[in-house]
Amino acid sequence: MRILGIDPGVATIGFGLVEAERARSRLLRYGVITTPAGLPLSTRLYQISQDMNQLIEQFKPDEIAVEELFFSKNITTGIAVAHGRGVILLEAERSGVPVFEYTPMQVKQAVAGYGGADKRQVMLMTQRLLKMKEIPRPDDAADALAIAICHGRSATSLLNMERVFDPRRYDTR
Amino acid sequence: MRILGIDPGVATIGFGLVEAERARSRLLRYGVITTPAGLPLSTRLYQISQDMNQLIEQFKPDEIAVEELFFSKNITTGIAVAHGRGVILLEAERSGVPVFEYTPMQVKQAVAGYGGADKRQVMLMTQRLLKMKEIPRPDDAADALAIAICHGRSATSLLNMERVFDPRRYDTR
Repeated sequence: MRILGIDPGVATIGFGLVEAERARSRLLRYGVITTPAGLPLSTRLYQISQDMNQLIEQFKPDEIAVEELFFSKNITTGIAVAHGRGVILLEAERSGVPVFEYTPMQVKQAVAGYGGADKRQVMLMTQRLLKMKEIPRPDDAADALAIAICHGRSATSLLNMERVFDPRRYDTR
Repeated sequence: MRILGIDPGVATIGFGLVEAERARSRLLRYGVITTPAGLPLSTRLYQISQDMNQLIEQFKPDEIAVEELFFSKNITTGIAVAHGRGVILLEAERSGVPVFEYTPMQVKQAVAGYGGADKRQVMLMTQRLLKMKEIPRPDDAADALAIAICHGRSATSLLNMERVFDPRRYDTR
């Protein structure tokens, strides 16, 4: 199963594409979408929507996994990122590809083995699991790959099949 | 000039359409878009995008005004609303209709005469300015009308013409 992981944002959106089979993930592609700070927010959101559509069309993922937002400190950044995340979820939904959401803790748990793992541990495990020579750069792309791995482990586990094929996901489209 | 004001959200999005000439606004239409709480966020965002497109197509506004978010207390609500606001700004941008943003304080200032006005004062002034028999209901629709009035006053003032016709708004589309 081909999974597109997305680390949401407005200035920088990470993406990572993996082929998942059972608990294993194989690296296919990764990178970032960026939008210039000088443009009006609505224009940046439009660019994000176009780039998301292009990624989905080009990569043809079977499923898309998007990280949930968790902000304890900077509410201004959180609000901005949520605008971008709204557009990302919308375009994923519009494409008809099933969309799944994971909290940062779920991603850490799935990739590094425990929810309290720090950023570097998650990145090192992402590198190892995908058999990469170095930690993927930039950070947003590494995060997106970790999200894709997380969904791969969840979606290809027989225990979770019921959740993954939750009919509500399909009926409401 | 026909202005569509939008009070952003996910569960309830207010809209208000006015015809603005000089500092005066005439009521055309108002109401709310709603999405059911039980659906996945991505599905709700998709419904919002479709409803926004329908409003723009049906009402053919010359300009769209969207309120900015200001959250001092509930960050969870703020994050959710920002997802919806992202989709609203995106669809406005996609339609090619110029989009403008106003802070709650700017709306209060324009409608009630001072930025510290309370919610009820703004609603009463909205009712009076639009020559309505009662305060428009629900609140989200009243807010959207206030936003439209605010943009009408700003956009039709000769002093503000330069800002309204800021070429960046057009070049980047």
